[in-house]
Amino acid sequence: MEELAKRGRGRPVTTDPGAVGMTALRLFIDKGIDNVTMDDVAEAAGISRSNLFRIFASKSAVVWGGMHLFNVELAKKLEANPETDIVRLLHTSWVEAMHLLDDSLETVRLRLKLIASSPEIYGWGHGQLEEARSVIEKKVSELTDDPMRPRVLSSALISVSMAILVWWAETDDPRTPSEVLDAGFSDFEAVFS
Amino acid sequence: MEELAKRGRGRPVTTDPGAVGMTALRLFIDKGIDNVTMDDVAEAAGISRSNLFRIFASKSAVVWGGMHLFNVELAKKLEANPETDIVRLLHTSWVEAMHLLDDSLETVRLRLKLIASSPEIYGWGHGQLEEARSVIEKKVSELTDDPMRPRVLSSALISVSMAILVWWAETDDPRTPSEVLDAGFSDFEAVFS
Repeated sequence: MEELAKRGRGRPVTTDPGAVGMTALRLFIDKGIDNVTMDDVAEAAGISRSNLFRIFASKSAVVWGGMHLFNVELAKKLEANPETDIVRLLHTSWVEAMHLLDDSLETVRLRLKLIASSPEIYGWGHGQLEEARSVIEKKVSELTDDPMRPRVLSSALISVSMAILVWWAETDDPRTPSEVLDAGFSDFEAVFS
Repeated sequence: MEELAKRGRGRPVTTDPGAVGMTALRLFIDKGIDNVTMDDVAEAAGISRSNLFRIFASKSAVVWGGMHLFNVELAKKLEANPETDIVRLLHTSWVEAMHLLDDSLETVRLRLKLIASSPEIYGWGHGQLEEARSVIEKKVSELTDDPMRPRVLSSALISVSMAILVWWAETDDPRTPSEVLDAGFSDFEAVFS
């Protein structure tokens, strides 16, 4: 941070996280993520190794890094949502939080393609998915006395969402993630009613 | 196999897979699975290393090995089930297949406790869970034209079932896995209706 500040008022070197992330994701997809080092990423992005690590601590962070912000947004949306019907609450809060990603469609799609491409890369996100799950579990447990339901509903929501989003990424569906999730959730609910 | 046959009609040495599996699972839980080698398991079960590997190829097989049989049973139950309502079809077929485990409650409970204890051990079962998921996806795709629904419903069923079963294992719930799944599925369905 200090180092950046010292450079003064000129446009900061190409350390726009969005651009660097996109370069990295394209490299992972083109060459196979196992064949790409963080040095390769730095070189392709035209930045120094230390600048790269300031943005992304690992290949895992490039792929899954965005999710913590989503989890924060989700927690806010759940908190602000006056809905007391659990299904509608989870449906609308999740879709609202997803709008966060509307401006970075291509990044989200590449991330999800990578996530779906190997169980190992999916597994890198365990902590992030578990964070989202526990945000939901906490909210559901405020609305029910059933001891099992918070765990079950939060697990279901995570896996349904991931299934929908991976399907969206793999089919190059033109809708935004929030649109496709909204439709996918509605279809899921319709199957049960 | 030949070696066993050569021994003739005497009771085979203690290579009852159920007993050996139980010994191994208890050892994993007591000492921490990372601290136990397959040699330790052989010693605790009082069998040779080669006899142990004939039953279980790895620690992963001890924990997740039973699932392939379940998947075969699930495919049979789905095939034989005349139900055309997707939710009832999946609910009843899964619960019926679960009866396979009614005789080995303690083993199932120990396995699930281990599975829930670390993302790594959960991850060992990726192939088995994916096999179950694709059995379900195939059946659902015969009953719908929606392109996304088979993937979404199969993912949901796997994660809902695992959430219910892990909850059952961790709370030492006295019911059988099939009873608790039946109740858990019904509760999940009720939330949506």
